[in-house]
Amino acid sequence: MILQPQEIERESMRIIQDSIENFSCPPENLPVIKRVIHASADFDFLHTLTFSHNAINLAREALRTGTNIIADTGMLYSGINKTIASRYGINIICTSSDEDIKREAHERNITRAMVNIEHAVKEYPEAIYAIGNAPTALIRLCELIHEGKAKPALVIGVPVGFVNVIEAKEMLSRLEDIPRIIANGNKGGSTVACAIVNAILYGLE
Amino acid sequence: MILQPQEIERESMRIIQDSIENFSCPPENLPVIKRVIHASADFDFLHTLTFSHNAINLAREALRTGTNIIADTGMLYSGINKTIASRYGINIICTSSDEDIKREAHERNITRAMVNIEHAVKEYPEAIYAIGNAPTALIRLCELIHEGKAKPALVIGVPVGFVNVIEAKEMLSRLEDIPRIIANGNKGGSTVACAIVNAILYGLE
Repeated sequence: MILQPQEIERESMRIIQDSIENFSCPPENLPVIKRVIHASADFDFLHTLTFSHNAINLAREALRTGTNIIADTGMLYSGINKTIASRYGINIICTSSDEDIKREAHERNITRAMVNIEHAVKEYPEAIYAIGNAPTALIRLCELIHEGKAKPALVIGVPVGFVNVIEAKEMLSRLEDIPRIIANGNKGGSTVACAIVNAILYGLE
Repeated sequence: MILQPQEIERESMRIIQDSIENFSCPPENLPVIKRVIHASADFDFLHTLTFSHNAINLAREALRTGTNIIADTGMLYSGINKTIASRYGINIICTSSDEDIKREAHERNITRAMVNIEHAVKEYPEAIYAIGNAPTALIRLCELIHEGKAKPALVIGVPVGFVNVIEAKEMLSRLEDIPRIIANGNKGGSTVACAIVNAILYGLE
């Protein structure tokens, strides 16, 4: 059995590469797709993950100048590689567990993720937004982009579930000026969002 | 569009219930299975999630007396509902980001998750172990159980990936004295482990 971390990673990627041998896509997208499959063991993402033209290269440029990353949940925040992020002066930001966010969400009877996004947009309108969990956060973000209040360097729109999820992803897919990565369909999640963010961060090195 | 958190949750669960209408299982397992599908939008888990006899009831008993929960990664730790846990005096424990764990893993050239488990077993041999990411952690835990050094109240064995994952789950499936929940096959992940833990916690109330 293989127990060395680097060897496990290499062998995983080799197995994935072998399984997707005939798949073709822009070369900069491939490490992202492979890392999502690595994190989910789900080859559906090979066909559901879509990238707007040049999204990865634009995201890399933004990250190299220290563009911050907004995470929609604490789980996503927790999984992002902060060692690499800090090398480029990138802050990873998630406020959805803050007490004032909780209070405001409760008072307005909307999701915390939605309030989190509203606050984040005020402070960081041009950040990279990664949304792996809450479709309501993605919907609110798309509205704010539409209103000209946000212009993210990249939106990672991979919320998961059965309510509002397809609609949220469709909203994002229509924002043609915004670099975006979408997992079409119901699937997605914090681990998928995290795999995408980390794959892009690893690509900086 | 539905924006109220409770209503989103209700509607999601209704959609899932409608989709699995003819599925049958012990009643205490159903909320766990539904929450995993809710978190993954992946109905494969309907057939891959297996529960040892009475696992959920035994886990509930353990949790009601404040049995701690060991999480294999920071992502899983972050997603577990601490409000409910704290009501029962349950601590959620994950040490895999501690500097001394990192150092030891680096020195021994094994995964941090593995070292994390070894340390956790010394301190909490009878805790609930939730492993959503690292098959090496599950393998080490199974070895320690086999050696009589650990006797967990429940093992949630749902690591994800292509290397060691099937083998780790097979090891766990052979430990017949240990209450266990396994996601057979390559799929699993932190969000799946988190959904299982939270579903059990919600079931306490």
